Amino acid sequence: MKKLVYFLTGIRSEYDILAPVIEAVSATPELEAGVIVTGAHLTQIHENSVRQIENDGHRIVARIDSLLASDGLSGRVKGAALQLTGMSDLFARERPNFIVVMGDREESITGALAGVYHHIPVVHIGGGDHADDGNVDNPIRHAVSKIAHLHMATTPLSGQRLRALGEEDWRIHVVGASGLDRLFSTPQLGRNDLEAALGVDWNGAPYVVLLYHPTITDFDDAGVHIASITKVLEETRLHVAIMMPNSDPGNQAIVGELNSFAQRCGRVKLFRFLDRLVFVNMLRHANALVGNSSAGILEAPSLGLPVVNIGLRQRGREHAGNVIFTDYSREEIRNAIVKSVFDQAYREHASAVTNPYGDGTTGRKIAEILANTEVNKKLMHKNFLM
Amino acid sequence: MKKLVYFLTGIRSEYDILAPVIEAVSATPELEAGVIVTGAHLTQIHENSVRQIENDGHRIVARIDSLLASDGLSGRVKGAALQLTGMSDLFARERPNFIVVMGDREESITGALAGVYHHIPVVHIGGGDHADDGNVDNPIRHAVSKIAHLHMATTPLSGQRLRALGEEDWRIHVVGASGLDRLFSTPQLGRNDLEAALGVDWNGAPYVVLLYHPTITDFDDAGVHIASITKVLEETRLHVAIMMPNSDPGNQAIVGELNSFAQRCGRVKLFRFLDRLVFVNMLRHANALVGNSSAGILEAPSLGLPVVNIGLRQRGREHAGNVIFTDYSREEIRNAIVKSVFDQAYREHASAVTNPYGDGTTGRKIAEILANTEVNKKLMHKNFLM
Amino acid sequence: MKKLVYFLTGIRSEYDILAPVIEAVSATPELEAGVIVTGAHLTQIHENSVRQIENDGHRIVARIDSLLASDGLSGRVKGAALQLTGMSDLFARERPNFIVVMGDREESITGALAGVYHHIPVVHIGGGDHADDGNVDNPIRHAVSKIAHLHMATTPLSGQRLRALGEEDWRIHVVGASGLDRLFSTPQLGRNDLEAALGVDWNGAPYVVLLYHPTITDFDDAGVHIASITKVLEETRLHVAIMMPNSDPGNQAIVGELNSFAQRCGRVKLFRFLDRLVFVNMLRHANALVGNSSAGILEAPSLGLPVVNIGLRQRGREHAGNVIFTDYSREEIRNAIVKSVFDQAYREHASAVTNPYGDGTTGRKIAEILANTEVNKKLMHKNFLM
Amino acid sequence: MKKLVYFLTGIRSEYDILAPVIEAVSATPELEAGVIVTGAHLTQIHENSVRQIENDGHRIVARIDSLLASDGLSGRVKGAALQLTGMSDLFARERPNFIVVMGDREESITGALAGVYHHIPVVHIGGGDHADDGNVDNPIRHAVSKIAHLHMATTPLSGQRLRALGEEDWRIHVVGASGLDRLFSTPQLGRNDLEAALGVDWNGAPYVVLLYHPTITDFDDAGVHIASITKVLEETRLHVAIMMPNSDPGNQAIVGELNSFAQRCGRVKLFRFLDRLVFVNMLRHANALVGNSSAGILEAPSLGLPVVNIGLRQRGREHAGNVIFTDYSREEIRNAIVKSVFDQAYREHASAVTNPYGDGTTGRKIAEILANTEVNKKLMHKNFLM
Repeated sequence: MKKLVYFLTGIRSEYDILAPVIEAVSATPELEAGVIVTGAHLTQIHENSVRQIENDGHRIVARIDSLLASDGLSGRVKGAALQLTGMSDLFARERPNFIVVMGDREESITGALAGVYHHIPVVHIGGGDHADDGNVDNPIRHAVSKIAHLHMATTPLSGQRLRALGEEDWRIHVVGASGLDRLFSTPQLGRNDLEAALGVDWNGAPYVVLLYHPTITDFDDAGVHIASITKVLEETRLHVAIMMPNSDPGNQAIVGELNSFAQRCGRVKLFRFLDRLVFVNMLRHANALVGNSSAGILEAPSLGLPVVNIGLRQRGREHAGNVIFTDYSREEIRNAIVKSVFDQAYREHASAVTNPYGDGTTGRKIAEILANTEVNKKLMHKNFLM
Repeated sequence: MKKLVYFLTGIRSEYDILAPVIEAVSATPELEAGVIVTGAHLTQIHENSVRQIENDGHRIVARIDSLLASDGLSGRVKGAALQLTGMSDLFARERPNFIVVMGDREESITGALAGVYHHIPVVHIGGGDHADDGNVDNPIRHAVSKIAHLHMATTPLSGQRLRALGEEDWRIHVVGASGLDRLFSTPQLGRNDLEAALGVDWNGAPYVVLLYHPTITDFDDAGVHIASITKVLEETRLHVAIMMPNSDPGNQAIVGELNSFAQRCGRVKLFRFLDRLVFVNMLRHANALVGNSSAGILEAPSLGLPVVNIGLRQRGREHAGNVIFTDYSREEIRNAIVKSVFDQAYREHASAVTNPYGDGTTGRKIAEILANTEVNKKLMHKNFLM
Repeated sequence: MKKLVYFLTGIRSEYDILAPVIEAVSATPELEAGVIVTGAHLTQIHENSVRQIENDGHRIVARIDSLLASDGLSGRVKGAALQLTGMSDLFARERPNFIVVMGDREESITGALAGVYHHIPVVHIGGGDHADDGNVDNPIRHAVSKIAHLHMATTPLSGQRLRALGEEDWRIHVVGASGLDRLFSTPQLGRNDLEAALGVDWNGAPYVVLLYHPTITDFDDAGVHIASITKVLEETRLHVAIMMPNSDPGNQAIVGELNSFAQRCGRVKLFRFLDRLVFVNMLRHANALVGNSSAGILEAPSLGLPVVNIGLRQRGREHAGNVIFTDYSREEIRNAIVKSVFDQAYREHASAVTNPYGDGTTGRKIAEILANTEVNKKLMHKNFLM
Repeated sequence: MKKLVYFLTGIRSEYDILAPVIEAVSATPELEAGVIVTGAHLTQIHENSVRQIENDGHRIVARIDSLLASDGLSGRVKGAALQLTGMSDLFARERPNFIVVMGDREESITGALAGVYHHIPVVHIGGGDHADDGNVDNPIRHAVSKIAHLHMATTPLSGQRLRALGEEDWRIHVVGASGLDRLFSTPQLGRNDLEAALGVDWNGAPYVVLLYHPTITDFDDAGVHIASITKVLEETRLHVAIMMPNSDPGNQAIVGELNSFAQRCGRVKLFRFLDRLVFVNMLRHANALVGNSSAGILEAPSLGLPVVNIGLRQRGREHAGNVIFTDYSREEIRNAIVKSVFDQAYREHASAVTNPYGDGTTGRKIAEILANTEVNKKLMHKNFLM
């Protein structure tokens, strides 16, 4: 009988990273994949990204509507409660062999809790990562690691951190970042085809990509912060391709300013959603990536793309030499963008870095580990190095 | 303005340990205490122990009905969801300055999550403790520690474990076990008065106390295990005072066997609930404590009481030299009870141990720390030693 | 494609009535049945009656753990919320063609609400019934009727009441009580075989059956009320077969007194659960049925069994001439029992009544109606006679 | 001791109608008002209208975050569950003397259920109203009436309908529509001041007000329907003042088209929110009200304002002679607008109608009834005329 592997996902950015693992699990004869879809996937805010999961052909075993409209702190907790409630009846009925969660979001901890209380082994992707941003996500990630029975660490350093935090060696597998799997397999688009796909007419002129998400620690100032960034970008007179932010608190202020920026500045193009093909090639052709997206840390090094990371998000994460970190000072931001786009020596350096997040075979590695792991007392009985 | 300190409690045994801290917080001019009551407190199974909290004069700020009747794994998860939901609206409205959780139960992790997502500092009592029982409680306790902003460790060893698991030194306070605070302050009852209070007529004959709770890891065998213990106790012909178990899964099998034991054996007396006064003096006069209660680890050493701890619960916890650990073999259990009750050399040794869990001033220490802790960015921004 | 008919059930007594309808639906080629199991079915209190549903071979489409342990008013509301939450995700995913609810319990109104808000036709069994007991169930039943799209009324009088309350004629079907379907199909047991099955040795002596459930309107007095009944039964010196009460508030006081009655009186036998075969034959051979069970109203007339109905439960329901209604006065209860058991003229009269609840073909009738009902705008667009 | 009267509100339009009743209850010495705020009030979509409730000086006894972001059918059911859960703990703790609900929304039925299961009298405002739109709201409203203990009917006809649906005469009070109370008390603004307040420069030219909400029965076509309306309004070349729709499913399509209409047509002004003062005077000076708002039915007759009501919403409600009902045909809509704005004979007729919804003293009447109603068995024990 096949081992049943459940994945839990609440937002497109998370699914994008899980997808290569789900595909690899589905392609493994000993395993069967099921996806629990929750959170932003089920809302129009993100254009019901659940449809992408369906289109990718994955079996959706439950849809747990959980995102509150209130865009505040208590909504996060209540949404987590709805996820727990939904998984409670599901796990009692279905009893998967593994529940896989990723990173540091609400669904990471709710999936881990629902799993461990049902005596189902919890597999955690991204444990041991670290972003020194004072954000709630960081302690949540480590809390999930305490509960998880298997760790799929993205880098050797993350694996060491898991050990330093008391996790047993044999539970830790360094597998790289699965987000890279798709990067390598995404076909190339020429610059002209890309411009057509984006609906822009920039004639090969330099452009930067802006990906800026709200940060929980300073979401009250989200409006001020994004305004500093758009102001600098307006002054640089560069073309700018912008992706809309995720749905964390603070999101609405950012959306408002981005809309206003696009209205007042003709060189700016706003995207709610882009195909993977178009998105990856937009990064490939870009002169720099600006904002605070994890794409700057994880994927940009494999593309040799210079990155300007602004504010606390991603701060302190393991990264290659293609990233300049700034705070919200306009001067700092401006200098970093100018260096990233126009300083040829720096650009050459950035194009030649080695990516600490691996080589694009992460999904396959995880599937093999799950296929070869026996669910027994040893796996379920957690000891800690202390 | 006073700092508002919320406590979360779901079961009598937990409240008994929290109560000295709540009292000390209430007695501190800079602090104000509020109690969130949930779980078993609100059910008749435990005779609505919420009434004891009311009678103790504490301000109850919310009652969150959360215990499912289904006595299974999924009920635990659903109950946790109800706790999160209830705290969500409460914290959004009231914004306490601290939320205090204890130990390793569902309410420990739900209180920690509700707190951290509302940016309210989480105070964890009992972090760094360790019971090597393969139980879900152990990873949950460590997960709560990852989230908590202040650790109130019960022993120096627990403090060291927190550090080994990556917690920063300045967050860790070794304060002892608050459960001892009440032990020292409970008045003495003579043996005759005790027998009257218990409604028994044992004329000063030796007796043991049996406190046996279900263990999550082997709750399917709870009926078999308790039957081994009652069988041995029946053969020893000792008098036995029994407290009913807590409401964890497996509870019903134990209750059934204990009822049967009491019906078939006249030397046995069953108690659903005892006043603190009576309970403590029942331990003071007992010849041994049998079962798997934390009282054997925490409080028995201060009373010089020999303890027979059966099975995985409490296994591996820091303890003094008054405890014999056994598995479920009847012979092991019998030998340990005989030694504890009748071996005078051993009994003298057990009566002279030092209690690693402190000296009964834990509540006061915690209250002082909270009164002197400033809620600021440093407190809220967790770093980890790794 | 088959029409998918979902049934919602929360307690054994309700399932017993639904079961013949589920069977008839399953036996109808155009229909497919699914059962949503919730409430007391999933708890040990009722020995996990979900197993009976499984053993009956029905497809369980969801288990929604919902019964709170708190045995109070707020637990009822919270349990209803868990039912709504569970059905929400289920209906969004599965979209049954009909949702069938019964009577006047929490799951009747939650099923109706989940259905109507998902635009799924709601079929209500037992609308238009009436029990003038001041109980919350009565208004709930009528509220469900306002929402329901099809009414399966048990008697012509109930059908008339639905019309009087504004329901359109064409939505109302008088189909009888499905509880009778199984009564007629249950094989006969001789008196000796019955005694063997019950584990009693009554040698054919007269006995009464006691079925007494808590009533929401006076649940605080449940202990006093049941004590009056057991006192009278103790004095009559009749043999008594007792079924345990359902899990409504007040249940624990009744359970306590029944246990005590059985302990102090050797002629009494207590049952938590009986096979349908044994239960029906226990009624067939009984000299009277005492208490407040709906079996006295619905099934007893078809068996010619005299009934003493005590208190407000069942009061005011349509009934045949085999029922004597009493309040809690011991004298009234005693007189009614004596008349029912020993007054031959009355017993002959009671044995010859006509059952207003039909002839045991209810399940088949309902299945036919559902097979022949088109789900269209007319069905979904409720008008009211007013 | 004052009687505690709780009001439940989930959306601004509902609060606007409840507010005069809350004010009147607060002004009554025997009563004390508390407001439970839930649903859209707590979201930024409606600019956190909870702040208006705070600014009005009412005591908010609970905030129950309940609106899901998913904008679908299952979100409605899940939101209802969150309301029930929140009220469950609240009512167990506080036990108000009355819970007042209004109309036919989710919070109407959840408030009624939470009340009746806690044995708290339910007061229903707007029972017996009728809108023959095939909408789920209609049966919900009647279901709430079945549960409610006191009915505050808006018109004599609504009172008669309640009787026809089986409600007892003495529970029914015809009190008018409280929405009118504020209309009469709102000060007058001159046309110039109004234009200044609206930020428009229309120089006294004729204008219409557009208020169009999604309808549950055809929310899939919401985008097509609103496009027909905007197209006609674009052709008429009238000035148009538009209020944004409520948050029911379909809302996003309407918002999209209205934004587009305002961008392509200079005579159009869009408002997310208007002060009562400005809103009422906007209606007073308008030449017609277009759309499907209840303001056209309830308030417009008291202002002598011609109304064009499009589609099923409000269809079949009791109304005066100032309303023309149309379907979505552009020609019908155009003819009705032209007649309303330009046909002087019709405009004179419309200006002189009598409002069936009363005279603006509804709040005071309800407060008096609650002050004079004893909460006793008679009130709680519902009988039905049938």
